[in-house]
Amino acid sequence: MSRQVIGAEIERLIQLLAKLPGLGPRSARRAGLHLIKNKDRLLGPLGLALQEAGANVTECATCGNIDTMDPCTICRDERRDRSIICVVEEVGDVWALERAAALKGGYHILGGTLCALEGTGPEDLNIDRLLMRAAALEVKEVVIAVNATVEGQTTAYYLVDRLKDCSVAVTRLAHGVPVGGELDYLDEGTLAAAMQARRPF
Amino acid sequence: MSRQVIGAEIERLIQLLAKLPGLGPRSARRAGLHLIKNKDRLLGPLGLALQEAGANVTECATCGNIDTMDPCTICRDERRDRSIICVVEEVGDVWALERAAALKGGYHILGGTLCALEGTGPEDLNIDRLLMRAAALEVKEVVIAVNATVEGQTTAYYLVDRLKDCSVAVTRLAHGVPVGGELDYLDEGTLAAAMQARRPF
Repeated sequence: MSRQVIGAEIERLIQLLAKLPGLGPRSARRAGLHLIKNKDRLLGPLGLALQEAGANVTECATCGNIDTMDPCTICRDERRDRSIICVVEEVGDVWALERAAALKGGYHILGGTLCALEGTGPEDLNIDRLLMRAAALEVKEVVIAVNATVEGQTTAYYLVDRLKDCSVAVTRLAHGVPVGGELDYLDEGTLAAAMQARRPF
Repeated sequence: MSRQVIGAEIERLIQLLAKLPGLGPRSARRAGLHLIKNKDRLLGPLGLALQEAGANVTECATCGNIDTMDPCTICRDERRDRSIICVVEEVGDVWALERAAALKGGYHILGGTLCALEGTGPEDLNIDRLLMRAAALEVKEVVIAVNATVEGQTTAYYLVDRLKDCSVAVTRLAHGVPVGGELDYLDEGTLAAAMQARRPF
């Protein structure tokens, strides 16, 4: 867009919005216009929320979660089962598991996966801290809940190897038919895994 | 999401992001995490850009465009043809026409369309100011470039009626086959209009 017809402030705002995942150049323009049109209801509050998040949000030194406190709310919570640590790739995975109320244990966020192509090695992930936590007496089980992708599974096998000297049970999420899923639309790998792990009614 | 595991600041940020067009609850969570992870590169600058836009962006009293000056850059520009006014629904339409370099005249932003269902009447649109501008001696043509929707066309007919006392030519954008469009995928209305308006090679 020519700089003659659009103010530098507006263009800068749109360029930054376009860097958000899920927004392309066209939707960033729409979002920018929407913000400017709703100055008091949306633009102002969003600016404030960003400032506050920038000032207050920090990473938990124990598990790698993000929160406004360190240790984070989950690590502080006395009612959680401290004998289980669930290892995930990203903070978003913690939120997903919490929405599902799948586990009342603790978490450990790796911050990614091993990936030779992108040059991500074990030293780039939050692994040393995991080994330290897993060595604690109270910990009985480490659930490796990484994504079922090639990188995720590579990382899982690496973690299993590193954890074998700790006296903890190492488990993984079950593979199978997603709840609500139709067999006809599932890939062969999932179907084979679901059949193999079949259970009595 | 339970408030126990996600800080209030982060939740508020995600709720505001979810109000942007094009972002749902899930993509707002992704965008929020992306912002927090890129605090210095993205979250800070975006907060600043919102503040600056909030403080500096204003509406042009002449044409209804948004800019950091009033009158806006387009209305100030001496090289533009002041005998033509192009009437559009929204500021985004101005940007689209400017990207196409379709017109070197001025614009007039209605701020919407007539819509009985939503209760939008002529008094809610920027019409009186258009009639004042169209009555000026220098103005020879008003191009009504509203969307080719039912509401857009209703508004167009209303404007034609209101403009008939001004001594200006009132025109509209041509209908036809979009450049790059395939006939097989076009609706009958567009094809009929394109055939009717056919031109010699």
